Amino acid sequence: MTEHPTIATFGTADGQLSLGGMTLQRLAARVGTTPFFAYDRALLTARVERLRAALPKAIHLSYAVKANPMPAVVQHLAGLVDAMDVASTGEMATVLDTVLPAERVSFAGPGKTEAEIEKAVAAGVTIEMESATEVDRVVKIGDRLGFRPRVALRVNPDFRVKGSGMRMGGGPQQFGVDVEQVPHLLARLVAADVDFLGFHVFAGSQNLDAAILGEAQRRTVDLIVALAERLPSPIRYVNLGGGFGIPYFAKDIPVDLDAIGANLAELMATRIAACLPEAAVVVELGRYLVGECGVYVTRVVDRKHSRGRDYLVVDGGMHHQLAASGNFGQVIRRNYPIAVGNRMDEPAAGPVTVVGCLCTPLDLLGDEVALPPADIGDLIVLFQAGAYGLTASPTAFLGHPHPAEVLV
Amino acid sequence: MTEHPTIATFGTADGQLSLGGMTLQRLAARVGTTPFFAYDRALLTARVERLRAALPKAIHLSYAVKANPMPAVVQHLAGLVDAMDVASTGEMATVLDTVLPAERVSFAGPGKTEAEIEKAVAAGVTIEMESATEVDRVVKIGDRLGFRPRVALRVNPDFRVKGSGMRMGGGPQQFGVDVEQVPHLLARLVAADVDFLGFHVFAGSQNLDAAILGEAQRRTVDLIVALAERLPSPIRYVNLGGGFGIPYFAKDIPVDLDAIGANLAELMATRIAACLPEAAVVVELGRYLVGECGVYVTRVVDRKHSRGRDYLVVDGGMHHQLAASGNFGQVIRRNYPIAVGNRMDEPAAGPVTVVGCLCTPLDLLGDEVALPPADIGDLIVLFQAGAYGLTASPTAFLGHPHPAEVLV
Repeated sequence: MTEHPTIATFGTADGQLSLGGMTLQRLAARVGTTPFFAYDRALLTARVERLRAALPKAIHLSYAVKANPMPAVVQHLAGLVDAMDVASTGEMATVLDTVLPAERVSFAGPGKTEAEIEKAVAAGVTIEMESATEVDRVVKIGDRLGFRPRVALRVNPDFRVKGSGMRMGGGPQQFGVDVEQVPHLLARLVAADVDFLGFHVFAGSQNLDAAILGEAQRRTVDLIVALAERLPSPIRYVNLGGGFGIPYFAKDIPVDLDAIGANLAELMATRIAACLPEAAVVVELGRYLVGECGVYVTRVVDRKHSRGRDYLVVDGGMHHQLAASGNFGQVIRRNYPIAVGNRMDEPAAGPVTVVGCLCTPLDLLGDEVALPPADIGDLIVLFQAGAYGLTASPTAFLGHPHPAEVLV
Repeated sequence: MTEHPTIATFGTADGQLSLGGMTLQRLAARVGTTPFFAYDRALLTARVERLRAALPKAIHLSYAVKANPMPAVVQHLAGLVDAMDVASTGEMATVLDTVLPAERVSFAGPGKTEAEIEKAVAAGVTIEMESATEVDRVVKIGDRLGFRPRVALRVNPDFRVKGSGMRMGGGPQQFGVDVEQVPHLLARLVAADVDFLGFHVFAGSQNLDAAILGEAQRRTVDLIVALAERLPSPIRYVNLGGGFGIPYFAKDIPVDLDAIGANLAELMATRIAACLPEAAVVVELGRYLVGECGVYVTRVVDRKHSRGRDYLVVDGGMHHQLAASGNFGQVIRRNYPIAVGNRMDEPAAGPVTVVGCLCTPLDLLGDEVALPPADIGDLIVLFQAGAYGLTASPTAFLGHPHPAEVLV
């Protein structure tokens, strides 16, 4: 399985996977327990640099914290990106502990409660309102607290984006306000005592097709230009969303970042320069920033042969990396890239099935994968674990210990 | 949706769902926050009584703690059942804090580490060994600690059970030792300094067909009788597994408990009396004991209408009750039984879609369900939340607060 391009980005030393300049066995000894998640600081930095090189300079790069809210990761990225987006007041608290000013923080998501909105207004972050109810709450809480809320409107567009892993715009949605309902709300917002900054449109996530992403960005700009024309003063915030996918599976082709950058450059030079000259244009990325920069490391505790199949049983499992087991919203289970991290130079042998330690057949991490022969004590590495790994997994399932997380 | 039979088991008062003799709104006020899980003590007791009435008196009823490890639930059931099964040393610690003697506790699951086996040997629980490696570890650790390990062997049968939600026996498996490999291991176990008690065979879970469950039990007894004949002394432990399903969906027909009981009674009077006279015969149930006795309660925080669809946005979601969102190992998403818990007497109106507060389209709790018109502040109840609810969900996803759990 060492063919997957993400694996090569980590490099090897002494026949082992290398993270943060340390061989995997040494890192495992430093952590002291398996399983654990490890995120590579240099890869995170390189990822941001790659994005900066491809995207127009004026683009504000925002990190969607939901992808990986580990405080050390958030702290590191806070020094590299221009903004961050949070999906809860829990994530907001993590971001407020960084150097990032509150006005560079956006708070999106349906169903914000009064208590959450109160914290966000007090913090001074930009609240992306998703419904008429939220507008009411923000205005009322701003009046009560005596702070002018910073707000934007999340808009559910009237177009759909093809090829996204998850569609979050177009058709009926719990996200945002349908574009046809926006004019009515804008009249209220203009009259209210709030600092209205602009709009957010997010069409879908995990999309690998630069042409489709580019088309979504163009249509989003058109939509926001039309809405902005209804306002008495220029808008200052245009959040185009993100949705850049990463190649989870062998056949996935990485997104063409330069094509996306060229499309954005043209948009910035034309429509945005002409019609939205005062707007900070934000591209918001979570998975794309961190997903490929992290691994899940788990140790082989048993080998079994059962009726023609070889099994490796590891001390981790789906309770830590649910998506890799294929049980998190996937229709068809496919293997995530996997390796024996302390046998990177050895050739693959016959297929082996890697299962976790949970007492359920769902706990399948690698189904008949080609790996070098592994022994008890060896370290199995699952790649693409930097986003939606630990926090998107049922860690309490079956009462095993919580895994460690390190940024190296 | 009030047609689902499980809903009626809770009863109502003042037009509200009633739990533990308390209306739902009062209970929500007592808990102080939403969302929360509530388990009904009286329903748990009634469930055990119903099982006792249907199953032969001599059957040992074991609770599979993995279904719901809330300490209060485990403490309550410890006074009602004969035994408990744990899947980790975390669960073991919870059970050891109850009145249940350690010798009534079994510890099953693949990939038990040396550290886990050491704790289990020291505790004196019955270790259900799942591989030759585990046999080696148990013998070595018993020697080192100077305690004689209590052990049983989990066997992967040579038959498969149809109709199970999850198959855990037959064909190649990570669970247990293939029956054809057992004789070789028994020779080692007889010579080792361990207290060998017997066998565990578990064919599959969430099965609603009493005829299939009965056939699995008969074949399991035959298999264990054949294995026991190879041993120099009678076995004392026969764990037939469980696998009784519960009716999650409207079309599901509850399992015919009396038919299962009749089949077990015949087995006890014939094959078991004749061939396994000294064996405690265990039926191990998790989901069937607790699944229908619990609800997940979440409050409506927003109402939205988007392009022909009505939405209720609640303060909970898939981060607490993943299975109800259809994203936990299901191929096809179907709605779990759902109600507006403070409007139980009101007629259902047009379809409404109930979504959680997470910023992902996966967070769908009720897809176009028929509910009474609900307002902000109303309490949405998801049933069948007593098993594999909280602990089988990604609670850290998006950084929302942990839900409360109460036993009333």
